Amino acid sequence: MFESLFENMIKSKPIVHCITNFVTVNDCANIILAGGGSPTMAHHQDEVKEITQNSQCLVLNMGNVNEVTSMILAGEKSNEFKHPVVLDPVGIGASKLRNETFMKLSKNIQFSVIRGNISEIKVIANGKGITKGVDADETDKVTEDNLKETVAMAKRLSRTLKSVIAISGSIDIVADKEKAYVIRNGHPIMTKITGTGCMSTALIGAFCGGNPDNILEATAAAVTAMGVSGDIAFKKMKKFEGGTMMFRMFLIDSISNMTSEILNGGMNIEKI
Amino acid sequence: MFESLFENMIKSKPIVHCITNFVTVNDCANIILAGGGSPTMAHHQDEVKEITQNSQCLVLNMGNVNEVTSMILAGEKSNEFKHPVVLDPVGIGASKLRNETFMKLSKNIQFSVIRGNISEIKVIANGKGITKGVDADETDKVTEDNLKETVAMAKRLSRTLKSVIAISGSIDIVADKEKAYVIRNGHPIMTKITGTGCMSTALIGAFCGGNPDNILEATAAAVTAMGVSGDIAFKKMKKFEGGTMMFRMFLIDSISNMTSEILNGGMNIEKI
Amino acid sequence: MFESLFENMIKSKPIVHCITNFVTVNDCANIILAGGGSPTMAHHQDEVKEITQNSQCLVLNMGNVNEVTSMILAGEKSNEFKHPVVLDPVGIGASKLRNETFMKLSKNIQFSVIRGNISEIKVIANGKGITKGVDADETDKVTEDNLKETVAMAKRLSRTLKSVIAISGSIDIVADKEKAYVIRNGHPIMTKITGTGCMSTALIGAFCGGNPDNILEATAAAVTAMGVSGDIAFKKMKKFEGGTMMFRMFLIDSISNMTSEILNGGMNIEKI
Repeated sequence: MFESLFENMIKSKPIVHCITNFVTVNDCANIILAGGGSPTMAHHQDEVKEITQNSQCLVLNMGNVNEVTSMILAGEKSNEFKHPVVLDPVGIGASKLRNETFMKLSKNIQFSVIRGNISEIKVIANGKGITKGVDADETDKVTEDNLKETVAMAKRLSRTLKSVIAISGSIDIVADKEKAYVIRNGHPIMTKITGTGCMSTALIGAFCGGNPDNILEATAAAVTAMGVSGDIAFKKMKKFEGGTMMFRMFLIDSISNMTSEILNGGMNIEKI
Repeated sequence: MFESLFENMIKSKPIVHCITNFVTVNDCANIILAGGGSPTMAHHQDEVKEITQNSQCLVLNMGNVNEVTSMILAGEKSNEFKHPVVLDPVGIGASKLRNETFMKLSKNIQFSVIRGNISEIKVIANGKGITKGVDADETDKVTEDNLKETVAMAKRLSRTLKSVIAISGSIDIVADKEKAYVIRNGHPIMTKITGTGCMSTALIGAFCGGNPDNILEATAAAVTAMGVSGDIAFKKMKKFEGGTMMFRMFLIDSISNMTSEILNGGMNIEKI
Repeated sequence: MFESLFENMIKSKPIVHCITNFVTVNDCANIILAGGGSPTMAHHQDEVKEITQNSQCLVLNMGNVNEVTSMILAGEKSNEFKHPVVLDPVGIGASKLRNETFMKLSKNIQFSVIRGNISEIKVIANGKGITKGVDADETDKVTEDNLKETVAMAKRLSRTLKSVIAISGSIDIVADKEKAYVIRNGHPIMTKITGTGCMSTALIGAFCGGNPDNILEATAAAVTAMGVSGDIAFKKMKKFEGGTMMFRMFLIDSISNMTSEILNGGMNIEKI
């Protein structure tokens, strides 16, 4: 299903310009490389326009709340060049500053994709939500029971913001205004390492950079690749009796060893 | 011995707000997650008060010497909310700036715990000491010969600063003004990776966040858990013929797989 | 061949002061520790002079383009104390800011070593070149066909800048104005993780810190150690069926387990 998207990314080796937080920046660079892209993590406001112009995709991660000026400069330039722009609204709802940052960014930049956990996406959709720290709140979680309404919410939000909406969790949702993919891959241990969300966003950047005309499917492919890699990594970790750091290693390793066959064989995806 | 402390942490899943250096920030976030807490690494002075208010513990790491204003804002707020505040005085003694930073912080913030290597703690206790780079000086090291006087120094310092004092080294000491724990776990290879100290401080944050009424024992439990994990990780590294990076992986992995039974079975702790 | 250089480094345990980017800073600190040095990652302009004065080598990495003032302060102090200064001109050519940063640094600081990929070194040598993102351009690559002229270029550049020039790639070159080492170790997977170049520069810092009177050979030894470790790490990764992150682990692990015997047995080096 995602063969051509995957091969486009690997062939084009897209340069993915990330303005991202320093907690997970190394993991983000490494997962872009593992996926076949070329990361460039340039933040300085005096160079981001040049850097982004020579890239194929821009990834903005609100975990770095100090670089709003650079984000806007880079975002406007990427919009001008019609490069995909992917936003990770890390921690929106956790402070007024984060909410204001999102408002500033969305006022100036047209996002191709917004990826967050369900609590973050709810804050964007409803103007309020429960966000403490950087994890989704238990009461917000996507379940089979609330799946239908959550997909509808994602589609409505996509229509409003003209962005593909990706919601990460034990059930992942990737939606535009009309279509949605529901992905049931991955493992709960993914919440026990930092950066799973940031890495997912970075990988979406690589897939979108290689497939700028097919953002919905590129995003779904990236999210699915993360989930399938999570499944593989958990099994490998168990085999070697490791813990969360071994899991992280195998998660990125599985992206670096991913093929269309592995992706197709492992994915549990539904179009609704 | 530490069963209930350990289970309190896992059950309460404390949000640990860290203002920390960017060298080891990823390791710190991951060890908090491995221990059962939820890390949030927010630095911006316009949001740290909100973030810390919604957290259960604050960890300040002087390796990030740029964020003193944010540290003071967060520290004062945490004191107001009676959250534990843990300080890692990284590199104190290595520059005037670090010494002044410590003075500023301690003037404005009441610390629950201060954890450092012996050279750093001696600088705090004596106003001078030998600190080059970020490692403890050979001549300062805690040995069985100077253990008694070092414990006495730690108790005196705890009385003066009203903080639990944790000294890391081949022999660890955790003391308040009256009691002290001496812990003989861990392995010299822990000094061959960056971040062992920072991670220990972060884990203390998670234990204290889950046990705010029992700071001395929570700190001792965290230090012991680090030491026992170091012992386990060294054996695993040897089994797979790895080196320092495999050791780091297994160190955090062992925290993520820690149980009361493993902790009790492996610990070498003495109360004096 | 490199026995004494290697042992000098391990015996002297040089403190290596790095002002470096936050993407790969953790890897740089860990590889310095793995090699036997002691890293200190201090950036603040109010302390870098003190820190560098108490160190044995200074490493400046232009991936951190925000800290030019600190870099100049530290560089001038290191020059005054005759400590080796190693520069990594990350991304030069990718933006005007990076080019200007290099000009500012080189106007104020005498570098002992400059290490970059071939595209970066060509930008320095010719005032122009092809740099997109942070990877060398395909058309620039050093091959057996253009090796002779590339070595000649490196020697000329070394004469002009009075710095040892190290060029990383599938064939590595380390040259001063008269002599050059050509090193054919390492594996293409080294380009699939972030930080290989930065780590190589950091390790050069450790070797030069331990051998300040023999910069050319110290640099060649560090580059060779990286290449030999790359060879070992790739084999280990294959054995455990891992990917790029396992490769990174084993790369640094192999530095931590390196001996003169392993280095001599594995290296493929030619003096021309």
